[in-house]
Formats: sequence, C-alpha cells, structure tokens
Amino acid sequence: MFIDRLISKILEKDSRVVVGLDPRLEQMPKDLVEKYICEYGETFEAVGKIFYEFNKCIIDNVADIVPAVKPQIAFYEAYGIEGLKAYRDTCEYARSKGLLIVGDVKRGDIGSTSKAYSTAFLGRTIIGSSESSAFYSDSITINPYLGDDCMDEFIGDVDKYEKGIFVLVKTSNPSSNQIQDISSEGKTIYERVAEMVNNKSEKRVGKYGYSSIGAVVGATYPEMLKELRDIMPTAYFLVPGYGAQGAGAKDIKDSLDNKGLGALINSSRGIIFAYKKDAYKGLSYGKAARQAAIDMRDDINSVISE
Amino acid sequence: MFIDRLISKILEKDSRVVVGLDPRLEQMPKDLVEKYICEYGETFEAVGKIFYEFNKCIIDNVADIVPAVKPQIAFYEAYGIEGLKAYRDTCEYARSKGLLIVGDVKRGDIGSTSKAYSTAFLGRTIIGSSESSAFYSDSITINPYLGDDCMDEFIGDVDKYEKGIFVLVKTSNPSSNQIQDISSEGKTIYERVAEMVNNKSEKRVGKYGYSSIGAVVGATYPEMLKELRDIMPTAYFLVPGYGAQGAGAKDIKDSLDNKGLGALINSSRGIIFAYKKDAYKGLSYGKAARQAAIDMRDDINSVISE
Repeated sequence: MFIDRLISKILEKDSRVVVGLDPRLEQMPKDLVEKYICEYGETFEAVGKIFYEFNKCIIDNVADIVPAVKPQIAFYEAYGIEGLKAYRDTCEYARSKGLLIVGDVKRGDIGSTSKAYSTAFLGRTIIGSSESSAFYSDSITINPYLGDDCMDEFIGDVDKYEKGIFVLVKTSNPSSNQIQDISSEGKTIYERVAEMVNNKSEKRVGKYGYSSIGAVVGATYPEMLKELRDIMPTAYFLVPGYGAQGAGAKDIKDSLDNKGLGALINSSRGIIFAYKKDAYKGLSYGKAARQAAIDMRDDINSVISE
Repeated sequence: MFIDRLISKILEKDSRVVVGLDPRLEQMPKDLVEKYICEYGETFEAVGKIFYEFNKCIIDNVADIVPAVKPQIAFYEAYGIEGLKAYRDTCEYARSKGLLIVGDVKRGDIGSTSKAYSTAFLGRTIIGSSESSAFYSDSITINPYLGDDCMDEFIGDVDKYEKGIFVLVKTSNPSSNQIQDISSEGKTIYERVAEMVNNKSEKRVGKYGYSSIGAVVGATYPEMLKELRDIMPTAYFLVPGYGAQGAGAKDIKDSLDNKGLGALINSSRGIIFAYKKDAYKGLSYGKAARQAAIDMRDDINSVISE
C-alpha cells in the first residue's frame, strides 16, 4: 500500500516534510542558467536541462531528510515537451533515490477521461503486449468538482497499483472560500467533499491506521484542520501553505496525531530557493535547501505532542 | 478577440460543431496501428505517430465543415512525452488548416501555479529575449474549484493574447450533481459558478454580443441550458454530451440564440470513430468523420429558430 510505504519512510527519517519541486527560471542560480543557455541558446531544451540539473542537486541534498518530493507539473508544462521531459526525469531520479513522488497535477474530468489521466500518472499504459509508465508517480493530487465517477477512475488504479491520491478539499489560496466555503444545510462544500473522501478513505486503511485516499488541506486555514480531521479520521493530509504562503508549525499542529502521523507538510520556494534567503547566505543552493529542509523538519517535529 | 474570431468562423461555415480529438488506441484503424507498430514496435513513439496521422486525416476531412477542434489532453498524456508531441503537433496542424483550438485541459490551481498553466497553453513562454508557445491553443477549459485568484491568472492571458477560456459550470457526467447541484440559499453551486463567470464575461463582450470568457455546460442536462443562459447572457457555451453521451439536437436547442449563436457543440467519439458505425459503413475513417460532422452540423442547424 502507498500509505504504508509513505508512513514507514516518515518514521524512518522522522520527517513530515515534502519538498515541492516547482522550478522557476527567474529564481535559478545564474551560473546554472548561463551554462545551458550558452550551450543550447534561449530554448526549451536549455530550460529543461537547467530544471533537471537543479532538481537532481536538490534531491541529492534532501533525500535523507524527507520522505517525498512533490513536483508541480504546471512549471514544467510551461516549457513544453522539454519541460515535461525534465518533469518525467525528475520523478525517475527522485524514485531512484528512495523518495516517494506526489505528482501535483490536480487532474479531474468525466469518467473515461479521468481514466486516461490516471493511466498517465498512476497506472500503466498498455500497448499490445507491452506496458510501461508514462509519468511515474506514487500518488497525485486530484480535483473533486466532477464528483465520484471522476474520483473512482483514479481509485481503481490506487487499488490495482498500490498508489495514492490527495483530493483537493480546502486549498491554501485566498479565494478558496468562494466555492469551497459555501454552506448548505449546515455543511460547507469542503465538508461535503471531505465526507466523499472519507467514504473512500475509510475502506482502504493500512497498518498504521491511515489510508491511501488522502486530502489536500491548506495550512493557511489552521482552524479547519481539526474539523476536517474529525470528518476524515483515516485520510492522510497533504498540507500546502507552510513558509512562503505564510503558515508556521503551530498552524499545522492539528493535522498530526500524537505520533506525528497524519500529514505531509509541503514547502516549495522556502526550501528550493532557500539560497536566496539571509538565513542561508553563503551556502550553495543545494546545501541551503538541505539546511532549510532540516530546519523545517525540526520545526514541525517540535510541535508534535507526545 | 478570440470570441469574434470564433463566431466569424461559425458564421462562415454555418456550423456550431467542435470535433473532439480524443484518440484511443483500441479504436484506431487496424492498418494504421500495424503500420507504425511494425516500424517502431509497441512503443509510445509508435502510438504518438498513429495518433498524429489519424488526427491529420480527421482534420483534413472536417476543416471546411467545423470552426474548431478540441483535443482532450488526457488521451495524449497517457502516452507520455511522445503522446504530448502528438498533442502539440495536432494543435499546430489544425491551426495551419484555419481551425481554432479548444485545448481541453481542465487546469486550475492556486494563483502562481495557474499562471504557469496559463503560460503553457494560452500565453507565451519567455526565455531571456526569446518567446514562444509551449502548447498553442486559442482557448482552454478550466476548473473553478479554487475560485477567482485561479481564474484571474488565465484571464490575464485571455486579455493580453486575445484568447478564450471555458470554465466548468455544469459538467455532462452522471455524478456532476454531487458538488455542482448542492443548493445554498436558493442557489446551486453551478449557479454560483455561473455568476462568477458572468462577472468576468460581461466585461469582455465582442462585436457579436458574446464574450471570450465562456462556460462548459453539459448537453446531458438540457433543462439547465436556459437557466444558465439567463445567468450568463454573454458567455459562449461549450456543450459536451451530444452523441455518445446521449444528447441530441433538441437537447442543445436552448443554448443557441435565434441566429444560431451562443454555443459550440462537441462530439468526439461520434465523429472521429464514425467509421465503426453502421450508418457510415464502407467509408474510410476520414470520410466517415467528414460525413458524421456534416450530419451533426445539419442536425443542429435544423433546430435553430429563425
């Protein structure tokens, strides 16, 4: 089961941190950019190589500190085919270093289309008598707006290939309230989605009491973490918003149980671009990311109530 | 403006049909499959080439019959990088034949991530002093679950590059009611989303009275088309569900005004795999698709009330 693999890595590394691999060209180290632009010109190919080398260095530096990485595919799609090669190769490299992959793809469509997305990211693509992975992930994020017949296609592959999904329940952005907080008969939309997730989640509980059907719950709304935990006692939470989006360790406290299980806390910019912060001045971008991941790990571990 | 380009093509061709380019390997003509599997083996590369040749033939046969095509990216992602090359090249080929592209990608995320998705599909990617399109589309579909700060990033590129978006309001699948039909204070979620769309749409009206900010409204829920038109008088509708999903011309009637404007009606399987139907027996897959597109065009035109 995905969830048991994830939790055993969390316990082994004593770390709840997932590093968001969201490369942005304008934040990349100058030397790295120049190296590939000189060789390949101002091309998608150059950027793909910059992103991949950058990610490899980050992965090498955090592989023993965190259980998982979360590449956000949008930042790769913006550079076309070459960007997506960097996405694919980053996932494979992280996997080879023993990290689990949360593909942050937020896909979702009608049943037959969701099935194709699921094949792309969770399942295996069959061609005649051959089969292989298009974009390997251990788990992905999905969007619930289309309801169950969308979600069920992904869950088919969760069961078949021992994968995981994190369903968007309450997102970390300012306007998440517009749809998600609308209340009907005493329940908000995000609570309804949480109930849908719980229905699927509670049927797939692993040996640590949690399930491979998880939920995205933004750390920027800490008051909701406890409430959502009550609705989804077995769903693992993927919690964005720590760091650059403004939340701290005390904000995510309620997502974790007294063993420090229940949530993966994400930071992207705060770790991968730590080399630009005063606190990590003088360190290479890889070493700065490593130290930032250690600091975040320890910050989160400090609020776990025994 | 995207919407004016779209409507002038609709009027020129007297056609409201958009052809969904959703290739499925198991439905492809056997000769075509064998040709590339023999040459490239059971590989993603072979499938990419099959899809691209298939799409080119469909495009050649429908280019004078329809204003636009709608490739669904999931079916290409399932074949990895090679599948996505076929997606990209299909969009470019359709464009070269004078067709508009509705990229059916259903993206949506927090602001900074949506910006990257928007760059990938609507905007232009800047690298130093160079800029180009990662995946060229004239318009795309987007998911509203994250609210305005997600939508606004796409709308920035709609305005800057004269593009269009179709926001999921009411989808065509059976479980679309789970979230979309929840009612609060007398309004359903899909009506709330329609109001959000209308706010953006009514500020961007072109010379025919419609806007480049449109809405996806499933033909499988015909009773909602009239209601949603009242809420969104200027939004162009993208209407899936005709044909394979069960809706007919009478079901989509209320999406069109008395000039036959207001909606693009999609059919995917019903056109591209028409060669498998009894009605088109004996025709090549290209000719069958052409005839199916003509039949659908005429079927829809027959319900336009003068």
